[in-house]
Amino acid sequence: MPYFVGIDIGGTNVEIGILDSNGNILGKTSIKTESKKGAHDTFTRIWNTTKLLCEKLSIKEQDIEAIGMGIPGPVINNSVVKIAANFSWQDNFPAKELMETISSKSVKVGNDVKVIALGETLFGAGRGYKNSITIPIGTGIAAGLIIDGKILEGLDGAAGEFGHVVVNKHGYKCGCGLTGCLETYCSATGIVREAKRRLQENTDNALYTLINGDLDKVEAKHIFDLAKQKDPFCLDIMEFFCDKLAQGVGMLVNIINPEVIIFTGGVSKAGQIMIDTMKKYLPNYALRMTLDNIVFKFGELEEEAGIKGAAALVMNK
Amino acid sequence: MPYFVGIDIGGTNVEIGILDSNGNILGKTSIKTESKKGAHDTFTRIWNTTKLLCEKLSIKEQDIEAIGMGIPGPVINNSVVKIAANFSWQDNFPAKELMETISSKSVKVGNDVKVIALGETLFGAGRGYKNSITIPIGTGIAAGLIIDGKILEGLDGAAGEFGHVVVNKHGYKCGCGLTGCLETYCSATGIVREAKRRLQENTDNALYTLINGDLDKVEAKHIFDLAKQKDPFCLDIMEFFCDKLAQGVGMLVNIINPEVIIFTGGVSKAGQIMIDTMKKYLPNYALRMTLDNIVFKFGELEEEAGIKGAAALVMNK
Repeated sequence: MPYFVGIDIGGTNVEIGILDSNGNILGKTSIKTESKKGAHDTFTRIWNTTKLLCEKLSIKEQDIEAIGMGIPGPVINNSVVKIAANFSWQDNFPAKELMETISSKSVKVGNDVKVIALGETLFGAGRGYKNSITIPIGTGIAAGLIIDGKILEGLDGAAGEFGHVVVNKHGYKCGCGLTGCLETYCSATGIVREAKRRLQENTDNALYTLINGDLDKVEAKHIFDLAKQKDPFCLDIMEFFCDKLAQGVGMLVNIINPEVIIFTGGVSKAGQIMIDTMKKYLPNYALRMTLDNIVFKFGELEEEAGIKGAAALVMNK
Repeated sequence: MPYFVGIDIGGTNVEIGILDSNGNILGKTSIKTESKKGAHDTFTRIWNTTKLLCEKLSIKEQDIEAIGMGIPGPVINNSVVKIAANFSWQDNFPAKELMETISSKSVKVGNDVKVIALGETLFGAGRGYKNSITIPIGTGIAAGLIIDGKILEGLDGAAGEFGHVVVNKHGYKCGCGLTGCLETYCSATGIVREAKRRLQENTDNALYTLINGDLDKVEAKHIFDLAKQKDPFCLDIMEFFCDKLAQGVGMLVNIINPEVIIFTGGVSKAGQIMIDTMKKYLPNYALRMTLDNIVFKFGELEEEAGIKGAAALVMNK
């Protein structure tokens, strides 16, 4: 029986999992990335840890068919990381080549967000759909576009930069250098900023009471929880950011006309109220035709998304 | 030697061409659509005209390998026209099936804009690119997305509705029902409207002189011609609509990160000044990364785009 390795490389930690051919994680572990020691060191430790995990699971090394790796940054041709900003590694970093040399296995590399989208398509909320968009919303926003069952990388590995669609050119300056990006409104950071702005003018509300007037304590989760309890102040914030989200999503569906949009990440924990509020505003931004049959869902892979997504790269037929 | 038929079905006329396997049009003709007589009538006349054209070109009917048809409206699975708004035919109109029954040939059907994009990819400005976007700008705006060498149809055949991306939600009402669509600013109609609005307040300019003060005479072409002569009034209008175009295109490149964008249609006749002015504003709306390697071009197929694009549907390997 063939086995597959899924590796989720982050700036701090590397998650490693071994999967059977049905996409079940048989075992997983993690190590520190410590990218300052150099890519060869990190990748060698990843492979040694993978071999130890195989031993523990009584899986022979030769039964590992292939390795998939998810990594932040734009990835070209499932092989080269164009900008390795989160690591102490050079740009145009040949991640596939290095891992193939160290492991003697077949390797594919993908952008971390895009592999999550592929993982949801193969093993999660996107099963059965050929054209899906997975949108993780956390401290940032991105989109993984699956077209005809395959990840859309884009010329420079930069397809799916949905968080940096400009929704208000007179808006806030974004970390990317642009002004008024979707991310400045709809990321957890953007939602908290809006809440703080309002709390400076309005202290007679449940959120202000909850945080004891300490604005530094505001979290996106507080806002979602109070909104679900029908607190008007927090419902207003939901309306505000879901209108902006609808503007972005409307643009996306007018262009791609996907079968399904899957929300993941911290902000998606707001739950159905987020989708319902967004859907209220969507007819202002999307052609009716594109909304008739579209499905909005939440991701299903949760904390296994990174490993399963990475493995999906080499399991996708 | 195999031959291919390309058919461009419009509300008024049908253009029919016969192509060799290199994509050269060997002969072409046109007939009236007269959709009120029913689809069976129109399609039978199309096929009879095709056979006459074959005779004229000394091509045997059995050497026709396949027929491609471009048609306005959303098309699903290269076969069914979901909404046949420009014709007196029912929705979910089975165009492929009907033409295959009448001709006994293999038939594929595509949306007219999307087949133009495919035509440009196979035979025109998009040759050699796997991911391209062709944007015809005339009285309306749309986009044909070619992903991995194939047309992106979308779930409801509605992918590429680029003209209806909302760029200003407080803007003009659009014919589609939305408010502030890109089309209301950057189509020929939108550009002329903006010019008229300005002419009502400013009569001391070259455009006003050119039209002898008759606002009904303003055409987009006048504005482009005067802008190329560096007329400040018309240059200002160019700046205005190219800023909005950049907003739309910026969003598109952030999402798709294509290799090339190809402009066609009447407004693209403005020429290089349009691309240059748009590029000036693009860094306000698109991530730098997506602009480093992108190419902007004009379509090459001109009046042959409809026939060649339709044929491309059945010639694309």
